[in-house]
Amino acid sequence: MTKVSYHLSAPWSSDWNNDCLLIYDRRLLRNAVTARWIRRFKISYAVTAGESLKAAEDFPRHLSKITSLAGSFASRRLTIVVAGGGSVGDFAGFVASIFKRGVRLVHVPTTWLSALDSAHGGKNGLNVGGAKNQIGTFYPALEVHLVRAFLETQPVERAFEGAGEVLKMVLLRGLRLPAWPEGNHGLKARDVNRWMWSAVKPVVQGKMKIVSKDPLEKSGHRHLLNLGHTMGHVFEASLGIPHGVAVAYGLAFASAFSRSKKLCSSTAYEKIISHPLWTLYLPSDLYVRCLNIPEKKILGLLLQDKKRTQGQKLRFVFLKALGRPVVQEIPVALLLKEVHRQKSLLRKLYG
Amino acid sequence: MTKVSYHLSAPWSSDWNNDCLLIYDRRLLRNAVTARWIRRFKISYAVTAGESLKAAEDFPRHLSKITSLAGSFASRRLTIVVAGGGSVGDFAGFVASIFKRGVRLVHVPTTWLSALDSAHGGKNGLNVGGAKNQIGTFYPALEVHLVRAFLETQPVERAFEGAGEVLKMVLLRGLRLPAWPEGNHGLKARDVNRWMWSAVKPVVQGKMKIVSKDPLEKSGHRHLLNLGHTMGHVFEASLGIPHGVAVAYGLAFASAFSRSKKLCSSTAYEKIISHPLWTLYLPSDLYVRCLNIPEKKILGLLLQDKKRTQGQKLRFVFLKALGRPVVQEIPVALLLKEVHRQKSLLRKLYG
Repeated sequence: MTKVSYHLSAPWSSDWNNDCLLIYDRRLLRNAVTARWIRRFKISYAVTAGESLKAAEDFPRHLSKITSLAGSFASRRLTIVVAGGGSVGDFAGFVASIFKRGVRLVHVPTTWLSALDSAHGGKNGLNVGGAKNQIGTFYPALEVHLVRAFLETQPVERAFEGAGEVLKMVLLRGLRLPAWPEGNHGLKARDVNRWMWSAVKPVVQGKMKIVSKDPLEKSGHRHLLNLGHTMGHVFEASLGIPHGVAVAYGLAFASAFSRSKKLCSSTAYEKIISHPLWTLYLPSDLYVRCLNIPEKKILGLLLQDKKRTQGQKLRFVFLKALGRPVVQEIPVALLLKEVHRQKSLLRKLYG
Repeated sequence: MTKVSYHLSAPWSSDWNNDCLLIYDRRLLRNAVTARWIRRFKISYAVTAGESLKAAEDFPRHLSKITSLAGSFASRRLTIVVAGGGSVGDFAGFVASIFKRGVRLVHVPTTWLSALDSAHGGKNGLNVGGAKNQIGTFYPALEVHLVRAFLETQPVERAFEGAGEVLKMVLLRGLRLPAWPEGNHGLKARDVNRWMWSAVKPVVQGKMKIVSKDPLEKSGHRHLLNLGHTMGHVFEASLGIPHGVAVAYGLAFASAFSRSKKLCSSTAYEKIISHPLWTLYLPSDLYVRCLNIPEKKILGLLLQDKKRTQGQKLRFVFLKALGRPVVQEIPVALLLKEVHRQKSLLRKLYG
């Protein structure tokens, strides 16, 4: 349903000349490439990206501004184009889904994480009283435009972080990608960006294959996309590390857990853990810090998690092998035991 | 998709025992029949019905209360049951459509207008800065329960008003209904309620036939449901008369306009205008007052109307004959000319 297009430079569509509202991350004005493109839109609304944009408490204020900006348009002919990362996409995607009971939505993700993940699959959300994504809709964009010239304006660290979501899709679907550029400490931005760009298409296609089988999260199939995210969210919330990096450690946790639960053979585990992308994240002191998060804190965050099913159980995504995920419902206590086991093991390894 | 059930007395479903939130009009507590039923729900949220409930500005306050009420439920197993009239249905239907990205919705309309019209067809909406239904979704209820014991708790005037929407469906679909009870001035509530109850099922089925051909208002077919509403909204907003009564006069206007535009033959017009339900509303000084609304005011209200297509034109629903509506795009000026024509005619008739 969603049409995904890949562009080397800033795209333009005649649909964007009239009856079109651009909602964009105001930081994009700092870069000439994105700023020039933004100025082509006749009507636009700048937002400050970040979790606070998603606060339901501020939503009426945004709505009244957007309503008056869009007031000159004929009803429901409006197209909302969104340029920014995950929070901007969540905010503006929700706006598009409810404004005049739904207008045309076009995503132009400008961060690697949103280009790889959040711009695709139709989920949006706002937070209520700090609780994440309490309200939202399933509302896939009509079009997603992936623009190399925009994505390359990011600092190279964002690529390093985004690679965590690439690794997730590698493990979920057994994707084969070109090797990550050599020279961990002297990496050239150009090489890293070229690699990330080459990963975008297979990662997006991988996600959409899973989404298309369960667009409204009803059958549970879509839950596979949470691989690495159960513990990843705990690491992100506790240590304040970037989402993609937290997911990478969540993937490390899920892989080792799959082996200790004997869900994957030692040969299969060897194949999982020998993938070259792991070298971006492991071995690392940061993973030790992740496992050292106090048990009480982990428990509190896990029980808040919406992936919780009934009582003290949650659905966890394991790996039987590279490209063969499986969802199992497990008691939260078992997860805490596994944290303890991995922590002890690492202590033995590194003293 | 929506299952409509008809009950003589208060219904109950085992689904309502757990993981269920009732959102209801607090006025329903004043009547023993509805109050007893409301108290069966373990978790409920009372709202004050009316246009102010639909203010987007107050929405975050409601959301935070609803989020904490529903906090004890497992994710997305929630059912929201809604008891009330149009504004409560619009508010709670919207909540259900976005809460946790959509939960189960059950409507129990308790006014004739909502039982006949607004609870069916899946539209909801909130107002932004006083502008009606600027945000909303299409989100049909899983179930609509129509309860005679609840509807009969209304004052008999509400039935008289609701009959305007019955008349609309009679004209749209050529419904054959039992005769309205005799004795305009000595009407017994029991007889009127019996008649209204007999009208509910055919009116709802008539609406759903039209909705099912165009659930998301894309093809334009659903626009037929606006018969009588273009001018009806003007009369309602200017004179503060009840919605159903305003619609009845909007229907009178549309019928006469159809004849003067020669869209219906004099024989067909005779058949339309001789339907016995008209006697509830016509002839009337109130219709004269409707036509006497200053032209400037009519124009202002028409141009705000979301049924406006481009510039100074709007889509208007005419009648070729009883049960044969047709939509035409007409200049607003033509509508004003018709107001003038009908006004002059009435002056000649009644001096």
